[in-house]
Amino acid sequence: MFMELDLQSESPIYTQIAEQLIEGIAKGDLKPGDALPSVRSLAADLDINLHTVNKAYQTLKQEGFLQVHRKKGVVVQPGEMPGVTAGFKDKVQRQLRALSAEGIVRGMAEEEFLRLCQDAFNRKNTKEGE
Amino acid sequence: MFMELDLQSESPIYTQIAEQLIEGIAKGDLKPGDALPSVRSLAADLDINLHTVNKAYQTLKQEGFLQVHRKKGVVVQPGEMPGVTAGFKDKVQRQLRALSAEGIVRGMAEEEFLRLCQDAFNRKNTKEGE
Repeated sequence: MFMELDLQSESPIYTQIAEQLIEGIAKGDLKPGDALPSVRSLAADLDINLHTVNKAYQTLKQEGFLQVHRKKGVVVQPGEMPGVTAGFKDKVQRQLRALSAEGIVRGMAEEEFLRLCQDAFNRKNTKEGE
Repeated sequence: MFMELDLQSESPIYTQIAEQLIEGIAKGDLKPGDALPSVRSLAADLDINLHTVNKAYQTLKQEGFLQVHRKKGVVVQPGEMPGVTAGFKDKVQRQLRALSAEGIVRGMAEEEFLRLCQDAFNRKNTKEGE
């Protein structure tokens, strides 16, 4: 799975890794039960610290997107994925509030913002996305 | 202006401050030319480091949302606000991609996601929001 990090970003590296794994699951590039690279090998591939990769994996395990398999190591949750929790809705609302506020100040029209939202959601459903 | 920080958040403190200032501008709580608290006094109010507040102010000044006024200190941009740049669109798209991917994996319907997007945009337009 191809992963790209933006070292200039305000977003912490472990968050970027976690987000890209989730995007891989959403797009179907990563399927339930698929084994992920070991912490050591992903850290080496990305040329970053072991702890950073470990933090991304731990976060996704705690949330239920990943599981530890005795033989395969870390795998994509083979059972039921976490649902739409109150915590997730909070996070979405917080981020959308900040994004739309900046859009409003910059003079973006509601239609344009909503089109970007719709495009983002739909690109995620297809492998053609990106 | 009321400001609330989440010290547990993945989002850096200076980003949270910058986002809340932008939200204040979007809602009209902060108007063009309004003076902001000094770095020193905001840092004291929030009980955080001077450098963190300074980084938030610097970021917003570089982007054109704030200006330094000879007498009033840091003020909300009294002239033209920055517009919808390619960089802003990129940021919106990146964040929406990550949010919608997690929504999809969690089984959120497109309608629900778009409703949250619309609510976020509209709550921003009104002082009743929050």
